Amino acid sequence: MMSQLFKERWMHLQAASNALLQQPNEPEALGNGIFKRYQYPVLTAAHTPLHWRYDLDPVTNPFLQERFQINAVFNAGAIRWKDEYILVTRVEAADRKSFFAIAGSKAGTAGFRFREKPLDIPELSDTETNLYDMRLVIHADGWVYGLFCVEYRNTDAPGSDQTAAIAQCGIIRTRDLQQWERLPNLVTRSAQQRNVVLHPEWVNGQYAFYTRPQDDFIETGTGGGIALGYCKDITNAVITEEFIIQPKKYHTVYEVKNGLGPAPLKTAEGWLHLAHGVRQTAAGLRYVLYLFMTDLADITRVIYQPAGYFMAPSGEERAGDVPNVLFCNGWIMDADGTVYIYYASADTRLHVASSSIDQLLDYVKHTDADGYRSHTSVSNLQKIIQHNQTLTVAKP
Amino acid sequence: MMSQLFKERWMHLQAASNALLQQPNEPEALGNGIFKRYQYPVLTAAHTPLHWRYDLDPVTNPFLQERFQINAVFNAGAIRWKDEYILVTRVEAADRKSFFAIAGSKAGTAGFRFREKPLDIPELSDTETNLYDMRLVIHADGWVYGLFCVEYRNTDAPGSDQTAAIAQCGIIRTRDLQQWERLPNLVTRSAQQRNVVLHPEWVNGQYAFYTRPQDDFIETGTGGGIALGYCKDITNAVITEEFIIQPKKYHTVYEVKNGLGPAPLKTAEGWLHLAHGVRQTAAGLRYVLYLFMTDLADITRVIYQPAGYFMAPSGEERAGDVPNVLFCNGWIMDADGTVYIYYASADTRLHVASSSIDQLLDYVKHTDADGYRSHTSVSNLQKIIQHNQTLTVAKP
Repeated sequence: MMSQLFKERWMHLQAASNALLQQPNEPEALGNGIFKRYQYPVLTAAHTPLHWRYDLDPVTNPFLQERFQINAVFNAGAIRWKDEYILVTRVEAADRKSFFAIAGSKAGTAGFRFREKPLDIPELSDTETNLYDMRLVIHADGWVYGLFCVEYRNTDAPGSDQTAAIAQCGIIRTRDLQQWERLPNLVTRSAQQRNVVLHPEWVNGQYAFYTRPQDDFIETGTGGGIALGYCKDITNAVITEEFIIQPKKYHTVYEVKNGLGPAPLKTAEGWLHLAHGVRQTAAGLRYVLYLFMTDLADITRVIYQPAGYFMAPSGEERAGDVPNVLFCNGWIMDADGTVYIYYASADTRLHVASSSIDQLLDYVKHTDADGYRSHTSVSNLQKIIQHNQTLTVAKP
Repeated sequence: MMSQLFKERWMHLQAASNALLQQPNEPEALGNGIFKRYQYPVLTAAHTPLHWRYDLDPVTNPFLQERFQINAVFNAGAIRWKDEYILVTRVEAADRKSFFAIAGSKAGTAGFRFREKPLDIPELSDTETNLYDMRLVIHADGWVYGLFCVEYRNTDAPGSDQTAAIAQCGIIRTRDLQQWERLPNLVTRSAQQRNVVLHPEWVNGQYAFYTRPQDDFIETGTGGGIALGYCKDITNAVITEEFIIQPKKYHTVYEVKNGLGPAPLKTAEGWLHLAHGVRQTAAGLRYVLYLFMTDLADITRVIYQPAGYFMAPSGEERAGDVPNVLFCNGWIMDADGTVYIYYASADTRLHVASSSIDQLLDYVKHTDADGYRSHTSVSNLQKIIQHNQTLTVAKP
């Protein structure tokens, strides 16, 4: 028997959910000429289906309570698949555990809907505590791969320390986004691995992995930087050597640590990379996003890298479960060159920004590189000012 | 050749910039009787000139992209100069490097405009990574001095630690705000120096520096507190001894560290100081501003110090790149006794508050000092309540 309370709550919940899912989403009017943010997040906890969060049976849930509270939807891997923009999102429950769920949209900037059920990834062992931050890539071998972080308790830590964890790279693959096969975790010589990304093409007949070797769960320690490693057999992936291609560096936005975001986009001029950089502040770590480009022939060689960040927390993005964090592990380039960047803010929600490959190439090629000191920054700025002073058309 | 896209963006960028620069700025209606905040920041990243951030040449910048992204404008030194309120601001680019730029306003609370170009301070060596937080003072010797923090990588740190830095005090001076002469950095016995301020008058024929000796880049260590040191020759400034005049103290707002803000204001009753105090919280450091007064004859002697903060982050000031931070290194006292306090929030933007020297004197003289315990605070409150109970006029 359905109570009046239940009936009214159900009606209002559906109305609120439908309104949210049908909300249009406009790009900002002006922007910085490099990308445009959209006004609303594309996915939040409130976008998850009502039939996940609520037991809808008036007998077993007379108050129509949330029986499975979802805390956040963020850090999504992304690919174009048939006529849809596909996101494999990190969904975090109230208990802190994350899992993955697919959402699709025909538009790419609004209208994302979750599939009926979350992804149910088989465990390799019952010591796997948490899964998050999937990087999706369509590889030249014909499979769609999902690389993600899988976290274990560090059993070497004393019992008094219930926070010590070990992060490793898990791997799944599919040919249809329906059936997923779990492969053994990536094996490297590093104590911890996070932010591992599969390069979409073969490199000398091998799989190439972007890794981020680190000594400790939070601190990268001596091994800091984005690295590359190779292996022949991805069904039993072992990397024996990692080469740092993008080390952390004093007084940059990636001074404390960095890590690759999504798989790079192939362009006529090089592989375009989006990474996150981390610095320390008096109020904790600050995560921003930056771009760089590597050589088409030699993917270990960085050929362009604009100074500083590409995108940093702004406005409402600043606040959330972990303030001062932008993170991106998914972007999609359309056939017409449009690029959708799916970035998360404050470990809480997922946004989209749009650009074009021409704009991003212009940005990486024509923005000055970091000179690593105040004086070089002023010199770069002076060059722009002086050039502008010679102009007659758009003179300041 | 200017594309339609370029033309439209340029038109809209100019309109947005003009609207921002012409925005009026009203004080709050009520306030606390000590000072009044103004409704908008006086300077932000968006106030920097378009011809700094944009290459305005349609040939070299067809998308009219920001070529030099500016992240923040904050922590400004301030002086009155002819008919203008002058701020020497800290401008931080997307690459984290800071430099200085002068902005002037006839009103003091709105209408600040940047000069054509940023300050180009000559390097003493190419190991100077970053410059910030200038204290401006018109000294009795006839020069206008700017003291600022200059930061170097700590080359004693292991290569795996790309965050270790050493802070020292740089010095420039001018007679016209046009030509600036760089002097050698201040030499003290402390491993690190930040928040160094020049006293505006001679003390026994010497220059007097407020210093903040510290052992480490972030931690003040054993040496914490605001100190005083003297030297004869500012063109080769060496301080052999520092005297702590304002030590950090348990369970105050300056428990973890403190540092002087702008140069003190001379009043009939003493030197009025504005300082920042720092305490630790679960979410990082919290910076607030406090006032104290030193003796006119003996500037090492604190004669008044109200308990707690004078100003703490409020509303939108709380959010930004480094949340929970108010910082002030510039204020201006007009001939009529009006005081403009230029304070920054969250290492992101610059605000103004106004007061008068009479109000500030009343505040420092008649606000109870810190009793250092809960019980003394309650006693101070009881005194006010009891006195109010004897009143007939404004009885509650």
